[in-house]
Amino acid sequence: MSNNYTEWLEFAKNLAIKAGDMIAEARKNSSFVRDYKMDHELVTSTDIAVDQFICGRIREHYPKHSILSEESSPHMDLSAIADNVPVWVIDPIDGTVNFAHGHHHVAVSIGLYVGRERILGVVNAPFLGECFWALKGSGAFCNGKPLAVSGAKQLRNALVATGFPYQKTALLPIVDRVSRILHHCQDIRRNGSAALDLCWVAAGRLDAYFESVKPWDMVAGALIAEESGAVVGYYLPHTSIWPEVVNGEGLIVSTPHLFKELLVLIRCEK
Amino acid sequence: MSNNYTEWLEFAKNLAIKAGDMIAEARKNSSFVRDYKMDHELVTSTDIAVDQFICGRIREHYPKHSILSEESSPHMDLSAIADNVPVWVIDPIDGTVNFAHGHHHVAVSIGLYVGRERILGVVNAPFLGECFWALKGSGAFCNGKPLAVSGAKQLRNALVATGFPYQKTALLPIVDRVSRILHHCQDIRRNGSAALDLCWVAAGRLDAYFESVKPWDMVAGALIAEESGAVVGYYLPHTSIWPEVVNGEGLIVSTPHLFKELLVLIRCEK
Repeated sequence: MSNNYTEWLEFAKNLAIKAGDMIAEARKNSSFVRDYKMDHELVTSTDIAVDQFICGRIREHYPKHSILSEESSPHMDLSAIADNVPVWVIDPIDGTVNFAHGHHHVAVSIGLYVGRERILGVVNAPFLGECFWALKGSGAFCNGKPLAVSGAKQLRNALVATGFPYQKTALLPIVDRVSRILHHCQDIRRNGSAALDLCWVAAGRLDAYFESVKPWDMVAGALIAEESGAVVGYYLPHTSIWPEVVNGEGLIVSTPHLFKELLVLIRCEK
Repeated sequence: MSNNYTEWLEFAKNLAIKAGDMIAEARKNSSFVRDYKMDHELVTSTDIAVDQFICGRIREHYPKHSILSEESSPHMDLSAIADNVPVWVIDPIDGTVNFAHGHHHVAVSIGLYVGRERILGVVNAPFLGECFWALKGSGAFCNGKPLAVSGAKQLRNALVATGFPYQKTALLPIVDRVSRILHHCQDIRRNGSAALDLCWVAAGRLDAYFESVKPWDMVAGALIAEESGAVVGYYLPHTSIWPEVVNGEGLIVSTPHLFKELLVLIRCEK
């Protein structure tokens, strides 16, 4: 099985690099159109094209695997999938708003889990020339160099990233959480790509990250963070429809030393 | 006099490029040490070295000019300077926290004003390979290409950047402002360099930016934004010790169409 894992990882890395080239090309030629999903979430024609490319290649090479994709199968029932079937989890462009605005913080995210285990994750950032990946139990890497979380010991010197939902109906508790953390850490970053924020925790560029996100935003990045020594946990109880292995609701990822203090602050526990 | 302006701009561009090389080199070799100013503001030995380099070159070439620098002369009394004396305003590293954490969003900021006019601004981002500049009345550029603000018409689709102070004593009204804007725009960005955020408004990558900042964070970027078609204004009354031309207290910079709506929201006017 582990031979398969290595083969799948190489396949995913190649896919993510080619998808990144498509994204860079689309920006260079301004060859994309914008649209909005429900709740005012931006989507571009490049999201769709890259999704079709990635999903097509996976179906061609691994017809027995399943695919959960933000753009083509976001409502898939994962509970109907047998525990031994590999499931690919795809975000063709994580940071679509950034992509459309010409920012650098944009990534392709490709993860794979089997049963209750995240097996591999690849997050490729074409505009920064950085490809992150991890294989369960084998560490995490950026452009081939091993990653490790920061050695931050004090929350007051820690840099913490977060994000905000597209929906505006339930922002107040989210702003309250950000305010509590902001009062106690060095500063907050809102970069606009959850997958990359997780990789930046893995690389020690951020000391922690918290946000409620979807499976395709977090599966690859959470494994990359874990394999770099980060603690992956939750500040909200698990009420989502997603299995734990892909649950991004109330996600908190941090360097081990800060985890508990952050969790208490975010939950507002006394 | 305009010949002088062009000469000063070329001088500033050269300085900013060389300073950017010093910053990139220091990161590559991990050859810097961290320290903290009052109020827990991070400073590195590279901030100091780059400041000495820039200020030394200015003194050598323009001994009659004045220099306001974040690192070496932050408490200078600008009111004592005659109206016809050019004043250089220097931030050797805007985004020091980003620099120390290995982020890309880091810049050298060099501005110059005379009397009540901002004359030139250069903001060089060495890790993104982008140098922004502007000369009063002559437009703004990034790596030689002309800049223009976005055509955003609706606040609900606008991307707005902001920042937070190092001091934690007066965060609540700041968080309230961010919350009001967040409820009405597409999303917030907190990138960690005011000078670059201003350039990104100029480039149409952001639709607006607001924050209370110091003169060295904003002089160069505000001119670059103005010369790209942005409106530069204030959401707080002018109570700072700084002359208007370098006042960053309650700064708001946006594409013209959104300016008034944003100002009303930030000020919480009914």
